[in-house]
Amino acid sequence: MDSTVAAALARRDGPIACLHVSYGQRTAARERRSFEAVASVLGAVRRRVVDFPHLGAFGGSALTERGIAVPAADVQRREIPPTYVPFRNAQFLAAAVAWAETLDARAIVYGAVEEDSSGYPDCRGVFVEAFNRLIEAGSRAGAALRVEAPLLHRRKAEIVRLGLSVGAPFDLTWSCYQDEEEACGTCDSCALRLRGFKEAGAVDPIPYRLR
Amino acid sequence: MDSTVAAALARRDGPIACLHVSYGQRTAARERRSFEAVASVLGAVRRRVVDFPHLGAFGGSALTERGIAVPAADVQRREIPPTYVPFRNAQFLAAAVAWAETLDARAIVYGAVEEDSSGYPDCRGVFVEAFNRLIEAGSRAGAALRVEAPLLHRRKAEIVRLGLSVGAPFDLTWSCYQDEEEACGTCDSCALRLRGFKEAGAVDPIPYRLR
Repeated sequence: MDSTVAAALARRDGPIACLHVSYGQRTAARERRSFEAVASVLGAVRRRVVDFPHLGAFGGSALTERGIAVPAADVQRREIPPTYVPFRNAQFLAAAVAWAETLDARAIVYGAVEEDSSGYPDCRGVFVEAFNRLIEAGSRAGAALRVEAPLLHRRKAEIVRLGLSVGAPFDLTWSCYQDEEEACGTCDSCALRLRGFKEAGAVDPIPYRLR
Repeated sequence: MDSTVAAALARRDGPIACLHVSYGQRTAARERRSFEAVASVLGAVRRRVVDFPHLGAFGGSALTERGIAVPAADVQRREIPPTYVPFRNAQFLAAAVAWAETLDARAIVYGAVEEDSSGYPDCRGVFVEAFNRLIEAGSRAGAALRVEAPLLHRRKAEIVRLGLSVGAPFDLTWSCYQDEEEACGTCDSCALRLRGFKEAGAVDPIPYRLR
């Protein structure tokens, strides 16, 4: 839902191109369907799917290894959770920079949320700043291309309200870490999402097993 | 040859794991053969091949697009050459960080060479420093994992001498940008390599069409 709200915001500034990454995550098929539907509704002028099966092969995460359980929600958790996928978002952003350079794009819109992000190091402001220094230092585009994270300092309830105000198609999005037909309602990602809708006084339109 | 010398240096400090990336480059098959042979000779305890076909699909480089010619050597060139592959090395290093985190490795050994690197932004010291800040900010490993670039400030002739002194198997390496049977001898990469061997007073053991 965060990526979709970020994309819905970005399209107000000009044409958008949408990138999806499949990486052997449990809900890959469901996320892919969401990606295609969201990109269509938002009118993306380009879309591309990148396959990163090496992330699943490297392992080390509950999102890609069946042998590591997705934990029940603990939104107060302070340490890095078992759903952390090693350096995942850096890999996604690096691929996005490569594509952005060939498209002459001026921004990569990144839906990371610092406060509600369950302690993932790659969802923090310091990471976004470091990534922008990396683009400046190591790409042809240099300072002409930036990662923008418009939701970074927002709470989930604000993101819901903002998304509703800019026409983000929440019904087409998927956030659950473990299930693909009905969202489980019990993982961190479902818990944060449900709490956000509740606090915003809105109803989450996707199906849940437990809510 | 630079990666191989860097790996030959690294194995003196402990076990090494070797990562290769195939990305739709012209010489992918030849480089893959070199990778396997070098990893065997150097005694890598782990090896892994990652496929990045999206780099070829994004295009924008003479190394991946047949419609863009590999230019003849111009080792004095100051601008970024057409063989630049958008943000390639950042993507390679990001994959390496992910693997390193699952292996509990303490260093990623990167064979970049600043002076002889034909103006690639991702072969410069500022890029390596920025990447290390990114690892600190955005990974579980944090400051316990660093990118090391032992050849960064060396000239090619020094790298040849160093490689010979640590048993780097130059005969198994491949540097040519365009050919796979005999190195062309005319692209930037061949020109830098041949000049390095000449200045080091050594003979490059690989076959060339022109030398």
